[in-house]
Amino acid sequence: MADTMLAVVKPEPRSGVEIRDVRVPAFGPGDVLVKVKVASICGTDLHIYNWDQWAQRRIRPPLIPGHEFCGHVAAVGKDVTTVKEGDFVSAEMHVACGKCLQCRTGQAHICQNVKIIGVDADGAFAEYVRIPESNIWKIDPSIPADYASVLDPLGNAVHTVLAGEIAACTVAIVGCGPIGLFCIAVARACGATQIFALEPNAHRRKLAEKMKADFALDPTRDDVKSIVMEATGGVGVDVVLEMSGKTPGIRMGFNVLRLGGRVSLLGIPSKPVELNVADDLIFKGATVQGINGRIMYKTWYQMQALLKSGKLDLHPVITDRLAMKDFNKGMELLTSGEASKVLLYPNGVK
Amino acid sequence: MADTMLAVVKPEPRSGVEIRDVRVPAFGPGDVLVKVKVASICGTDLHIYNWDQWAQRRIRPPLIPGHEFCGHVAAVGKDVTTVKEGDFVSAEMHVACGKCLQCRTGQAHICQNVKIIGVDADGAFAEYVRIPESNIWKIDPSIPADYASVLDPLGNAVHTVLAGEIAACTVAIVGCGPIGLFCIAVARACGATQIFALEPNAHRRKLAEKMKADFALDPTRDDVKSIVMEATGGVGVDVVLEMSGKTPGIRMGFNVLRLGGRVSLLGIPSKPVELNVADDLIFKGATVQGINGRIMYKTWYQMQALLKSGKLDLHPVITDRLAMKDFNKGMELLTSGEASKVLLYPNGVK
Amino acid sequence: MADTMLAVVKPEPRSGVEIRDVRVPAFGPGDVLVKVKVASICGTDLHIYNWDQWAQRRIRPPLIPGHEFCGHVAAVGKDVTTVKEGDFVSAEMHVACGKCLQCRTGQAHICQNVKIIGVDADGAFAEYVRIPESNIWKIDPSIPADYASVLDPLGNAVHTVLAGEIAACTVAIVGCGPIGLFCIAVARACGATQIFALEPNAHRRKLAEKMKADFALDPTRDDVKSIVMEATGGVGVDVVLEMSGKTPGIRMGFNVLRLGGRVSLLGIPSKPVELNVADDLIFKGATVQGINGRIMYKTWYQMQALLKSGKLDLHPVITDRLAMKDFNKGMELLTSGEASKVLLYPNGVK
Amino acid sequence: MADTMLAVVKPEPRSGVEIRDVRVPAFGPGDVLVKVKVASICGTDLHIYNWDQWAQRRIRPPLIPGHEFCGHVAAVGKDVTTVKEGDFVSAEMHVACGKCLQCRTGQAHICQNVKIIGVDADGAFAEYVRIPESNIWKIDPSIPADYASVLDPLGNAVHTVLAGEIAACTVAIVGCGPIGLFCIAVARACGATQIFALEPNAHRRKLAEKMKADFALDPTRDDVKSIVMEATGGVGVDVVLEMSGKTPGIRMGFNVLRLGGRVSLLGIPSKPVELNVADDLIFKGATVQGINGRIMYKTWYQMQALLKSGKLDLHPVITDRLAMKDFNKGMELLTSGEASKVLLYPNGVK
Repeated sequence: MADTMLAVVKPEPRSGVEIRDVRVPAFGPGDVLVKVKVASICGTDLHIYNWDQWAQRRIRPPLIPGHEFCGHVAAVGKDVTTVKEGDFVSAEMHVACGKCLQCRTGQAHICQNVKIIGVDADGAFAEYVRIPESNIWKIDPSIPADYASVLDPLGNAVHTVLAGEIAACTVAIVGCGPIGLFCIAVARACGATQIFALEPNAHRRKLAEKMKADFALDPTRDDVKSIVMEATGGVGVDVVLEMSGKTPGIRMGFNVLRLGGRVSLLGIPSKPVELNVADDLIFKGATVQGINGRIMYKTWYQMQALLKSGKLDLHPVITDRLAMKDFNKGMELLTSGEASKVLLYPNGVK
Repeated sequence: MADTMLAVVKPEPRSGVEIRDVRVPAFGPGDVLVKVKVASICGTDLHIYNWDQWAQRRIRPPLIPGHEFCGHVAAVGKDVTTVKEGDFVSAEMHVACGKCLQCRTGQAHICQNVKIIGVDADGAFAEYVRIPESNIWKIDPSIPADYASVLDPLGNAVHTVLAGEIAACTVAIVGCGPIGLFCIAVARACGATQIFALEPNAHRRKLAEKMKADFALDPTRDDVKSIVMEATGGVGVDVVLEMSGKTPGIRMGFNVLRLGGRVSLLGIPSKPVELNVADDLIFKGATVQGINGRIMYKTWYQMQALLKSGKLDLHPVITDRLAMKDFNKGMELLTSGEASKVLLYPNGVK
Repeated sequence: MADTMLAVVKPEPRSGVEIRDVRVPAFGPGDVLVKVKVASICGTDLHIYNWDQWAQRRIRPPLIPGHEFCGHVAAVGKDVTTVKEGDFVSAEMHVACGKCLQCRTGQAHICQNVKIIGVDADGAFAEYVRIPESNIWKIDPSIPADYASVLDPLGNAVHTVLAGEIAACTVAIVGCGPIGLFCIAVARACGATQIFALEPNAHRRKLAEKMKADFALDPTRDDVKSIVMEATGGVGVDVVLEMSGKTPGIRMGFNVLRLGGRVSLLGIPSKPVELNVADDLIFKGATVQGINGRIMYKTWYQMQALLKSGKLDLHPVITDRLAMKDFNKGMELLTSGEASKVLLYPNGVK
Repeated sequence: MADTMLAVVKPEPRSGVEIRDVRVPAFGPGDVLVKVKVASICGTDLHIYNWDQWAQRRIRPPLIPGHEFCGHVAAVGKDVTTVKEGDFVSAEMHVACGKCLQCRTGQAHICQNVKIIGVDADGAFAEYVRIPESNIWKIDPSIPADYASVLDPLGNAVHTVLAGEIAACTVAIVGCGPIGLFCIAVARACGATQIFALEPNAHRRKLAEKMKADFALDPTRDDVKSIVMEATGGVGVDVVLEMSGKTPGIRMGFNVLRLGGRVSLLGIPSKPVELNVADDLIFKGATVQGINGRIMYKTWYQMQALLKSGKLDLHPVITDRLAMKDFNKGMELLTSGEASKVLLYPNGVK
């Protein structure tokens, strides 16, 4: 192993990144060093790149971003027992404290003291990344590397879809970025019987169709409420999965929800949202869930089981593959709205 | 039985009521005619009395209001089998259609076609009230008539408290009108370990103390957040029961909620509410429930079991007793903010 | 409509049936008279036919058996509002009392006073059958008649599979009679990732393969425990669906269950079962559910949604089609072990 | 700290123990050394003492038994961060592996590789005991030492009672050893409305009365079924908590359970149990749960909250207090059937 490696680095508190050589990370007795095979770009990385308000508050440069990846174990600390050199792995990048109420009661995904690798510590947009053993996820060899690199956002989708009843349910998915698109696949695989994908961007709507949504609607043009009501016998949908984080999307979700239905919110609004709490929530007898990360590690087991059994076809979501050194190109693609999931290869696209 | 009876009547679309003689209601083969022993006044009755915007949209005079009561069966239709003359009863006043999806799947409390006796049909502020047999609730003789007259709002409280985990939980109850006060008793009886009652009105706060809330706080003066955080070891409360229907109350509730906690909303806001969906709901991993009515009839069984076993002391909530002919006095008392539950006796206070 | 109709009749307390003309049933104001299009034979009908001990205790001849069917509404009582002549329907044949604790708390499928049409009252092995309106289920026209005739056992399967988590779960289905076979289809459609079908009968095992079980094992020959353990990474299955009602089957189910798994029991043992409660249940932290009928009417909505969306291929289960007058032939087929679901056509096979 | 300490030791594979000086345990960087203040005797300790079949299979002498205790931190390993010398603590004595499916999905209480301190490693019947930091439970100072010494069995009770609905429920508790008695207190505190304690031993029945069971019945004499049915309006109990581990007790539990009720099994039968699966489980639509240990660490939080709020009066259960050197006396007391919880004090009874 060389001493240095290629990495995408946010060097200072300003927009943009540098792609340059840095030292391979040191690792402690409980750590695993992973040689990154494929990493993928998340919307969060775009925030960091653009150095927006959220990034300015949260990020402390210098930082190597990147929290979606897969690779092979390059080396392990002396106390590591569950993986060995050469194992194919990914990782849960939310590192929980293990000591707060939430961690000690099965809710580590909402740990009071969580640190995120790729946000609060150096991440996976590099040839190597250091991960604590507890967070390593060994990948079944039957799962292709492309899919293995997107377990983080796929896990968001699995967590959201399976946060309540889904079998034999009608579902509206609001917002068709990668996680929304994954939700289509997961909901279908888990027995959802009618899937309404709501998305104003035409490129994303096209992907929603490829993911086999029953309806791919443009809320800026289609009469979503009427279409949903007609298709559901005047009842509305059983489940709304909110992935847009936009006020109109959230409202539209509540609007098409049936009495007694579930709304699971994952998309993060950048400002307060005015809701019609009386009509949309109370009189509806709705249940609303805030969804965060992936349940550690139940979501990972579920995701692996679904992938291994071949129940998820995720190909349409993966739109672009780039060498990691062409990271800036990835940013352009995502900014254009014409890409969904962009994969990065530290050692060139294969 | 006489042909006429005393009743509180909203005769026309304007504020106020008339107290006068009307015909005793006719009843069909599936109906039960109940001689009212005690009725109690709800905030809804004040809306109807004052003829506010909600009332103007919903109420079609002439109408006898009143939907909280107990009494004895005076007569039964020929198809009625479950009660007989003389039985002591109350009733679920939400009459569900029995045919919609919600009714057929155990969610009749959010029936698509519900009619409310006392709102959509003549109610219990009279000597007699007609109820369909399906909605009659036979009262265990060990339950005192005062309590039997408030099963409707007590059922709201039981439904809200038991809508999720409550045993060994810390709870904030926002708003201490009668239902909020009942929530204190129910939460205590069901194992809540710390109860924070939040209420700006001093009279209601005093009642919250009498109901044995561990803390009765004035959110306009006390530093609620700090007090809750200190008392819960910096964690926040497990459960928020929102009974105020006010924007500041709802926000305060989310504010003191712990990561992963539950918010059950029963108080109905009169206008849209701006919420910090990102921080208060999504990052918190919160679950929010809209609560409506009483589960038919699970809540009634629960309520009866709790009352029969003597686990609920509701006396402090019942602040006033009036002859039904003094209904206007009841309105004054409630308007003053110095009353909580006002009971009405068609045949004079006993 | 003629006055008389063809029917399969158990005339007296002895084995066998008569196939003869009887009067078309009279119907009351709340009843629906259905012209049977297809009926299907259940194991229960074989018990009645053979006049075994269970039948001797339960059945009071004369009786027309048959509780699985579909058909068109021929006439309705004057109070019926939800269906009209010509509608395509099936029915929930468990007629619940509507007044017991279970009925009033959403558990009508375990009503204290249930009567079963086809067991306690004349059923569907006839040209016409009378059903109370409350129990009629209107069938979406997209659902084929063959499938519509087996909603009762399909509903058993849907109820059992969806009685707990199933998405991303491994499942052992013990016993591959029609309900076990349906369970394979439902579990697959709802996201089960590995399905182990256990069945000693070779014909049924072949059907299990056609239903796309991942493994169709013969517990009298295959080393089921080893195969399950190897395929599940040494963990055991998440879910056991017990459809055999046999002691060895029940024990095998517990034996392959993982720590913390679910066992749902639907197959009815004819005698007490000795269980290793300490190891198989307590130390395993298992959850065991007794499953009965179909949840009224949640299961019916779920079933309809799954069928309508085309997620269930049930064809392999329907092995034989007979004219209703050849009922005895159906009994022979089922006794031989070479048939699964046998459909009967009152007016000849179409 | 001295080098040696007093301890109860099972020196060899035979009945009895030795009470003698042994070396104070060494401890590693992640361990906590606790100076035992009070320890309490469990039925398991009696099995070890008597060297019965279970003990012969499981125990590898020499061993210091004892898994219920409280004390003060005497020393901590260098990596320990959550407690410090002098802290008042108890511990979860089930040491989970942290790496199996169950551990990684919030079910560490049924870890595939659990080791129990006091069973598989030296325990708390000594002046000092070594505990890994992860398993230490810091005790709120408001909780008295007597109660703090019985958190293990109290946690069993809390886990069992709260494994399903309990508020507003009727409950039968089968078997009134210490855990059964604790169940009475916990069920009452959490809203159970009628508690039937079933116990043949007169001394234990008397304690059940002191714990305020509504009924303390002798199943060998009282007509339990009739009494329960009459008191529950002919319905049966909502919940059965099985603590006896005896076949007649388990059957009696199912016998008094209502349709749709819950049975939680904690008492461990020493041999297989013949159950009427058809009538008692399937037709009843019952849910049966195997209960094991305490949920890590949800049960501990719940238990602490209940104790801290003063909702549990456990005094009647603590029948005897002995110096630890009089351990054999404790064995005699328990064998006599005239003791419930026996506390041991390494440094003399205070």
